[in-house]
Amino acid sequence: MTYRFLPEHEAKEILEKYGIRTARCILVEDEGEAVSAAKSIGYPVVMKVAGIIHKSDVGGVILDIKNDEEVRKAFRRLISIPGAKGVTVQPMLPKGIEVIVGVGENEQFGSYVMFGLGGVFVEVLKDVSIRLLPVTREDAKEMIKSIKGFKILSGYRGFKGDIEALINLIVKLNEIVEKEDIIEMDLNPVFVYERGYAVADARIIKGKRKRFDYKIDNLERLVYPKSVAVIGASRTEGKPGYNIVLNLKRYFKGEIYPVNPKADEILGLKCYRSILDVPKEIDLAIIAVPAPFVPRVMRECAKKGVKGVVIISAGFSEEGEEGKKYEEEVLRIARKHGIRIFGPNTTGIMNIDNGLISSFVVLPEIKKGSISIIAQTGLFLGILMKHILTNHPGIGFSKIFGMGNKIDVDDYEVLHYLSKDDKTRVIGIYMEGIRNGRAFYDIAKKLDKVVIVFKSGGTEYGRKAALSHTASICGDDDVFNAVCEQANIIRVYSFEELLDVAKAVSFQPLPQGDRIAIIHYTGSGCVQGADAAYLNGLKILDFNEKTVERIREVTPEWHRINNPLDLWPMVEYYGLEAYDVAIEAVLADENVDSLVVSVPASKRWGNLIYRPDFERLKKFKKPLFFVIEGPRDLVFDLKNEYELNEFPVYRDVITAVNVLGKITKWSLRREKTYSSG
Amino acid sequence: MTYRFLPEHEAKEILEKYGIRTARCILVEDEGEAVSAAKSIGYPVVMKVAGIIHKSDVGGVILDIKNDEEVRKAFRRLISIPGAKGVTVQPMLPKGIEVIVGVGENEQFGSYVMFGLGGVFVEVLKDVSIRLLPVTREDAKEMIKSIKGFKILSGYRGFKGDIEALINLIVKLNEIVEKEDIIEMDLNPVFVYERGYAVADARIIKGKRKRFDYKIDNLERLVYPKSVAVIGASRTEGKPGYNIVLNLKRYFKGEIYPVNPKADEILGLKCYRSILDVPKEIDLAIIAVPAPFVPRVMRECAKKGVKGVVIISAGFSEEGEEGKKYEEEVLRIARKHGIRIFGPNTTGIMNIDNGLISSFVVLPEIKKGSISIIAQTGLFLGILMKHILTNHPGIGFSKIFGMGNKIDVDDYEVLHYLSKDDKTRVIGIYMEGIRNGRAFYDIAKKLDKVVIVFKSGGTEYGRKAALSHTASICGDDDVFNAVCEQANIIRVYSFEELLDVAKAVSFQPLPQGDRIAIIHYTGSGCVQGADAAYLNGLKILDFNEKTVERIREVTPEWHRINNPLDLWPMVEYYGLEAYDVAIEAVLADENVDSLVVSVPASKRWGNLIYRPDFERLKKFKKPLFFVIEGPRDLVFDLKNEYELNEFPVYRDVITAVNVLGKITKWSLRREKTYSSG
Repeated sequence: MTYRFLPEHEAKEILEKYGIRTARCILVEDEGEAVSAAKSIGYPVVMKVAGIIHKSDVGGVILDIKNDEEVRKAFRRLISIPGAKGVTVQPMLPKGIEVIVGVGENEQFGSYVMFGLGGVFVEVLKDVSIRLLPVTREDAKEMIKSIKGFKILSGYRGFKGDIEALINLIVKLNEIVEKEDIIEMDLNPVFVYERGYAVADARIIKGKRKRFDYKIDNLERLVYPKSVAVIGASRTEGKPGYNIVLNLKRYFKGEIYPVNPKADEILGLKCYRSILDVPKEIDLAIIAVPAPFVPRVMRECAKKGVKGVVIISAGFSEEGEEGKKYEEEVLRIARKHGIRIFGPNTTGIMNIDNGLISSFVVLPEIKKGSISIIAQTGLFLGILMKHILTNHPGIGFSKIFGMGNKIDVDDYEVLHYLSKDDKTRVIGIYMEGIRNGRAFYDIAKKLDKVVIVFKSGGTEYGRKAALSHTASICGDDDVFNAVCEQANIIRVYSFEELLDVAKAVSFQPLPQGDRIAIIHYTGSGCVQGADAAYLNGLKILDFNEKTVERIREVTPEWHRINNPLDLWPMVEYYGLEAYDVAIEAVLADENVDSLVVSVPASKRWGNLIYRPDFERLKKFKKPLFFVIEGPRDLVFDLKNEYELNEFPVYRDVITAVNVLGKITKWSLRREKTYSSG
Repeated sequence: MTYRFLPEHEAKEILEKYGIRTARCILVEDEGEAVSAAKSIGYPVVMKVAGIIHKSDVGGVILDIKNDEEVRKAFRRLISIPGAKGVTVQPMLPKGIEVIVGVGENEQFGSYVMFGLGGVFVEVLKDVSIRLLPVTREDAKEMIKSIKGFKILSGYRGFKGDIEALINLIVKLNEIVEKEDIIEMDLNPVFVYERGYAVADARIIKGKRKRFDYKIDNLERLVYPKSVAVIGASRTEGKPGYNIVLNLKRYFKGEIYPVNPKADEILGLKCYRSILDVPKEIDLAIIAVPAPFVPRVMRECAKKGVKGVVIISAGFSEEGEEGKKYEEEVLRIARKHGIRIFGPNTTGIMNIDNGLISSFVVLPEIKKGSISIIAQTGLFLGILMKHILTNHPGIGFSKIFGMGNKIDVDDYEVLHYLSKDDKTRVIGIYMEGIRNGRAFYDIAKKLDKVVIVFKSGGTEYGRKAALSHTASICGDDDVFNAVCEQANIIRVYSFEELLDVAKAVSFQPLPQGDRIAIIHYTGSGCVQGADAAYLNGLKILDFNEKTVERIREVTPEWHRINNPLDLWPMVEYYGLEAYDVAIEAVLADENVDSLVVSVPASKRWGNLIYRPDFERLKKFKKPLFFVIEGPRDLVFDLKNEYELNEFPVYRDVITAVNVLGKITKWSLRREKTYSSG
């Protein structure tokens, strides 16, 4: 990377050009010049060595210089520092609240801005907020408010910083970074006053900014092909090439052409020696031959005019030099002939809508629904899918993409495809690396569907040697968190959580506010739910009088009616009808935006099997989550029954409230985006 | 509470008496005295108003006073502040690193010490550490090191604070707080220098310190009774009084005496009109009559000489005034006659060893094991136990205590009992409130068994109006976290997590170090496991050469052998034998203290059913956790098989590593306790 480090006075000139107030800074080369500069600025002044990056570390900054004599002394000291390229003189700014505003460039996402309080707050406590550039005023405001030390700016010990001025400064960076080709910048410190601010020191590094060009192809033909060839089809039961044909035969609503030079027929389908022998047009080829043969197969696909392939085979760049050569060759052929590739090293695609499936794992039928998945793990459509289908038979899917090595089709293109897919309401993503993060961000930001991301590999910070504080502080995972905030992506930390959130969105309406109610069959469940609500920033308001009156009808006199509501005494006296009454009363309450209800399940103990009237409950159009606790099989059966009726069930009240917290945050941020334009 | 707020000069006198360096402080009453005090101290000085608590807020502190004239001016200004009771003069201390050392008193746990960096670090960022008093030197060191801003003390921009001196200061508080009856104290700020420190300002509140007297009874007779009466026994199937007798009849190895004035026989057992009619001695009575009748029953128990009761009935203080009256009456009778009470409002006790059970929920047989539970939820031995038994049949228990309202027997007594119980290796606790926290802490601290606590109700801080900064910052949950650190208690945040940790301890040896290895059947699992290890502070070292060599035998040439180890290519080439070879090689590696192994399970796809030779693996004496993924029932069966062989199985690699992280931390802290005496 070529870059140019600007001397402080040049950096400040640029900033001033854009209307940013700095401590004007004069470069001087001898004692005489220094004295006249100081006089023109007015005492006291600050003097700094020029030409050295970390000035403070070498004693290159002298504050509060009060007269000509001190200026001369300071000049002599500074100019003697090895590497000094002159000295600068600038006004001693009145002390304000020190903040840092910085710019850095992330490998995957490009330019971002960082904000924090100065000094130890940034360097020791890392109390900073980050947003990708460009930022809106709303983004800038959120950045400033979200640091832990915000109170220091907002009014601490009688002193307040000028937040509006800071917002202006941050938003201005959109233009400066773009026009001046800035890759890194530290405005550090910036003094914030009651009115206005001034940049005391500035460091700017110019260079060639990373570009994130991307094109978006229409993947429709790959996801809804009319005809599919399986290259590497096998007659041997249990082999990948056999299972792929078996899956397709079971589910795919289109033509299937197995290709295998040694077979005439596979699973009753005519088999071809080569894809070139297939008499009809092929929309998609599934390639399951060993890596060394894939280049040849690709050339045949090109000749046949195939526009999309899923490469199942492993043994490419993930396994060393030889594999990498195959990968490059495959990619070369694809680019030349306009063939799009999923994979390699993947179980590939599943489209529940038309039964397209490229997996080599024999899968049971998947329920249709509105969840789509993009997963960077070869085995998603294998063990993991079996886990999901058998544990969560009530959850329905639309499309599943196992991305594998992502040598061609990247997450962002699939994300774009799904944003237009009217069968998809919620998109779950598992990723480790990301190739074109900026494209991903652009698309995610525009997208009005819930996107949930489980990203791992975040703890190994890929920090390059950084010239600025900003770049040294903002690790890849910090930037990715900022991306999630800014593009309103729900970040989760396990597959389980991804499914927990996805099913809620796919089943239930979105919450219109942050006021939650909880009904539980134990007092301890009420306490746990309230804790979780608090930690998720949800509010628990009292029920209104009408609600209390209605619930009173199924409540023993001595029992208190609160939110959370301990329902056990009511069940003891009035049976499971107490649930019906309480749930409907609470859903009708204007102080309640969402509800979590926990029910016990038992056959042997009072036949506690609660089956609500699901259709009645849907009419309230408020999110309603259930928790069912009791013996394993009974709970499983009930859960599936609830979920087939589109009411999500969780394993405990804490999990249910956590999911509601994430969805509520998403929903309210979306409102904000829409209301602020 | 009566308390006495000491003026600054008195506070400092006390501190000086114990050898704590302060800015000596002279109280003066006129300008002349002020000037001579200043002269005796030497310029510059600081002057403060006396008699006002929040001096800074009223402009009552003037720094850097340089001469007699300034002293006079300062005196006049300070004395004119309303409420002023004189003025103090003290030296202007050289600037050091500002810290705060404070003392507060928690309702449940008594006196604690708080440490943090001064000013905004404490007030805005709440970056503090807390320990109960008395503290050891080791505690004090840990406190200082555990704040986020520690770097500022340990050497930031060329300046280092004197950590040893700070430790001395903190440890000294043990004695001062005790001897001087201090309930709250702020030493704020304390200036820390490269050598030594000085307390610039001090605030001390004296008062009657809370006392936490407690006695410990031997609960043996209640937990191992020879004879049990059930008062409120019922002939009606399904009623609580019926179920209790049914459970006892099935499991209890002792005599059972149902009591019901209207029945002759229940479940084939002779029934008595009153406990007084029972011809034999009764060790324990289980009381299941409505609350208003309980006092009468208690009197009869007293007459009969019963020494322990479990009160199942609800309707006491948890439900209002009337219930509270019954509770007080019951307690009065119990105290008078030396009867110990479990409950009320609980399912009570289960002792798997002798089959004692007081629950009114019909329960299947519970497997014997080394986990004991203390739970403050009435329904633990109900729905929750059914959940546990059906979901985790491999987990074995020793004793289970449902504590209910805890009007008499408290957690700490049961904890003490279990500490002596040689059938119990690990103790899981669910609590909301805590009655005598100090007793709990004392016992937990001495106890050499793993204690795991799930505490809820922590977000509603019970902060009383506080005179000191310290008390206003340290909420109940912060203090409880400190208790967990100091007594080496593992804190968890759900029942699921409690069981996850408990089963690992009950099955496996403790880790002897923090170096973990991971074997997974997917690359993404390896990445997720590595992330989780990092976040838990566990180390992932390379395998040594011998290990790599041995694994090489079952590895295709092109595949890399790393930690975490992606085993899939090896399984493809060498089948499940690859697991045997890899697991044994890794367990034998000296760079590995613990191992997590994830295996896929599938019947239909290559018959992937891995059954290790458990006895061989036990010989390595290192903790080995498994993850099994695949279809629901197959995974369940395999999990139970593994767990019956005492190898814990988790739902995903992240959960397994998190559990290992908690146990490793426990194990290493325990070593430290033992090695430092």
